[in-house]
Amino acid sequence: MRFNLDPIFKPKSVAVIGASRNPDKVGHVILQNYVSAGYSGKLYPINLAAESILGLKAYKSVLEIGEDVEMAVIAIPAEAVPKALTECGKAGVKAAVVVTSGFKEVGNAALQDEIVKVAKKYHIAMLGPNCLGVMDTRSRTDTLFLPTYKIARPQAGYVSFVSQSGGVGSTLLDVIASEGFGLSKFVSYGNAAYIDEVDILEYLMHDKETNVIVVYIEGITRGKEFVELARKITKVKPVIVLKAGRTEAGVIAAHSHTAALAGNYAAYEAVFKQFGFTVADDFDDLINYAKAFASEKRPKGNRVAIITNGGGVGVIAADDVASSKWLKVGSLSSATKKALAKVMPSIVNITIPMDIGGDGDSKRYGDALSMLSNDPNIDMLLVIVLFQTPGADSKVAAEVVHQKDATEKPVVAVSIGSTYTQTHKTMLEEGGVPVYESPLFAVKSLEALLEYAEYRKRRGILTSSFFE
Amino acid sequence: MRFNLDPIFKPKSVAVIGASRNPDKVGHVILQNYVSAGYSGKLYPINLAAESILGLKAYKSVLEIGEDVEMAVIAIPAEAVPKALTECGKAGVKAAVVVTSGFKEVGNAALQDEIVKVAKKYHIAMLGPNCLGVMDTRSRTDTLFLPTYKIARPQAGYVSFVSQSGGVGSTLLDVIASEGFGLSKFVSYGNAAYIDEVDILEYLMHDKETNVIVVYIEGITRGKEFVELARKITKVKPVIVLKAGRTEAGVIAAHSHTAALAGNYAAYEAVFKQFGFTVADDFDDLINYAKAFASEKRPKGNRVAIITNGGGVGVIAADDVASSKWLKVGSLSSATKKALAKVMPSIVNITIPMDIGGDGDSKRYGDALSMLSNDPNIDMLLVIVLFQTPGADSKVAAEVVHQKDATEKPVVAVSIGSTYTQTHKTMLEEGGVPVYESPLFAVKSLEALLEYAEYRKRRGILTSSFFE
Repeated sequence: MRFNLDPIFKPKSVAVIGASRNPDKVGHVILQNYVSAGYSGKLYPINLAAESILGLKAYKSVLEIGEDVEMAVIAIPAEAVPKALTECGKAGVKAAVVVTSGFKEVGNAALQDEIVKVAKKYHIAMLGPNCLGVMDTRSRTDTLFLPTYKIARPQAGYVSFVSQSGGVGSTLLDVIASEGFGLSKFVSYGNAAYIDEVDILEYLMHDKETNVIVVYIEGITRGKEFVELARKITKVKPVIVLKAGRTEAGVIAAHSHTAALAGNYAAYEAVFKQFGFTVADDFDDLINYAKAFASEKRPKGNRVAIITNGGGVGVIAADDVASSKWLKVGSLSSATKKALAKVMPSIVNITIPMDIGGDGDSKRYGDALSMLSNDPNIDMLLVIVLFQTPGADSKVAAEVVHQKDATEKPVVAVSIGSTYTQTHKTMLEEGGVPVYESPLFAVKSLEALLEYAEYRKRRGILTSSFFE
Repeated sequence: MRFNLDPIFKPKSVAVIGASRNPDKVGHVILQNYVSAGYSGKLYPINLAAESILGLKAYKSVLEIGEDVEMAVIAIPAEAVPKALTECGKAGVKAAVVVTSGFKEVGNAALQDEIVKVAKKYHIAMLGPNCLGVMDTRSRTDTLFLPTYKIARPQAGYVSFVSQSGGVGSTLLDVIASEGFGLSKFVSYGNAAYIDEVDILEYLMHDKETNVIVVYIEGITRGKEFVELARKITKVKPVIVLKAGRTEAGVIAAHSHTAALAGNYAAYEAVFKQFGFTVADDFDDLINYAKAFASEKRPKGNRVAIITNGGGVGVIAADDVASSKWLKVGSLSSATKKALAKVMPSIVNITIPMDIGGDGDSKRYGDALSMLSNDPNIDMLLVIVLFQTPGADSKVAAEVVHQKDATEKPVVAVSIGSTYTQTHKTMLEEGGVPVYESPLFAVKSLEALLEYAEYRKRRGILTSSFFE
């Protein structure tokens, strides 16, 4: 590894260079976010004029502090960055996140080269410039200069998310905050003048707090190193990737955006597929797949059972499974059929999809889920709970979570609706059941699990979870 | 037309047969929903024992009322329905919604035949049995026996939604309630013993309050009549259809669900495509396409302009447009380029996608949208507003609505995120701008508009709106 990124993600102390008393300033928002996130390390606001900011004693320079500073967030005008970074070097600061823009992305390559030279000289692990930086839900470091009312911060989890684009990154971060699966680390790496995507991915591959990696990239600079890493990383944990520049129009747009050479998508895709990456085609896929992988269960085959309390949605799901490339609608063993016939009311047709009726309650869901998950003919369970129906309530949500915990097979849910449904969706997700808002999303996600499981099998990695 | 459905959708008076004082009973929920919806017609609870229910005088039979009753909702056990329906006939009731189940769907065809015979004898337009019935946001008739805390009711609009399945219907109704486009009429027609999908679609074709029709069907009984209607209906207004049974597995599941003969999907699809139906492949499509059509603008060509305040999402959208079947990324005329260069800051690259920057505010959105919508090289506008960025706020939302109103060209938006974004999404949607949560959904919806516009052109219908 070129860099140890621990000081970036787990700093024991942070200097905010450019901290300000003015709430409109980036440096104020950053300091404010550290304070309100409950960051437990030491915080040093750096400001030329102020005595104190947000109740913390302020310093004119990192050299004035007189104590060890592990990481610095730099949020001052571009032309002042080289001097501030040099002071960091002299003060023994190990890492710096330069959020400031106005470097290579606006044609100012010389200034960018200058800060890289400083970083190299003083062995500073430098992220950026022109980036949102990092967030770690456990250490509570958070260099994002956007207020929490605009971007909600996700709860702690085991999915880490790397984005070349700050806009894509902050948007998905905000979306993840309303999902139940939680986040480990977020990185927006901007111009990648020093630390780049290969460094970050290599760090996350070894990170014990990361089980699933989600990546948005426009271009890759160190292609050879990326391929070498790609070969190793998916043997350790799943990587979901959305690569911009799938089309000529996208390639041109990407170049205009981050000056990235998006290159030949087909070549990238070939590498991704060869090495078992989960390729997303759109925004939704990133979240949907991450959610499925975060639930940590590995399918052993392609046969899907569908349980529903709404016949129509069951029919649509069956169509989606049957239209998919690899999955098929499972058939019940005769033992399971007999057992189910004993406990289900006569109106329930014992077949897949199994419609337990609009009055299907927690008892009926429990019976169906436990018997289907014990059936050797079934590899995955897709459970549809329409909370609009009379039988579906919090008890059903609790039962689905319980049954998911009791089986080794992947269980995903589909619930569609507004307020009442959203409340129960949250219950399910906080219990570790991935919930989708359309049958198609659920089916695509199960297929992504299967494809990755098959890749690991081909590579001889046969653990019951993806994360062992 | 076989039936006049006005008494179903616009009844001046409603008898609720099976109204109950017990809040757990279906008949109670229905009466309660009429009362709390502010239904302005006369309401007559029918109950053998109670003197009054929910403050309304109760009657033992419709024959006792002594005033004209236009419509009856029947929510009593199946075996009691023939007698109640006969009394409706004798009392001159014009229409009945039989929500009760326990007829043909459980093998009781004889009882179903009996009530059809009664309906025919007395010329009662009968919907059901085994259905949720109807809801009309203007007359406020609402026979859905599900409480509003479970299924939110949408605001008034011009989209009507017909669903064979009660589960699919109520779920989508609940989803539509959290969208801004509004609903005109909802129909869940169940066993279709008398009134069927052809009758309902024919009524909606002529309905002045319906501009867009959304249909979920499993099987069609009167195939010949359906094809005749299909030939006419899309000349008048767009019809979005999701047909279950796209696969063998789906056909079997549909038969088990509503005993529908889902038939050969390819044959259905051929009819849909020949007659300009907008074919949905999944749940999301139904809502996404409905939203686009509800915005009432017709594209004149396939060239899409993309405006964004987040470069990465702009790149993804460009990829989505370029990957689509019919759309292409537009190129600006040189006049527009010159005019934009004068008003945009130098960091903005004057090209499509046009990234106005993370600090892009209402002024910059306004300039970009007005100039792009006046460019003869552009047919449709896709505007991305990431509300996580510093420049994006309520003023931007208001400006996008303003610019949408000022142009004849379709404008759709993409905004992705949690609380802050959702608030602003609602502002945009209530202003008539369809908002999508992924670039792909927006692009697919623009393509659906284009396909329908091209169909109308081929049929020689050249109005500037779809609804003239």
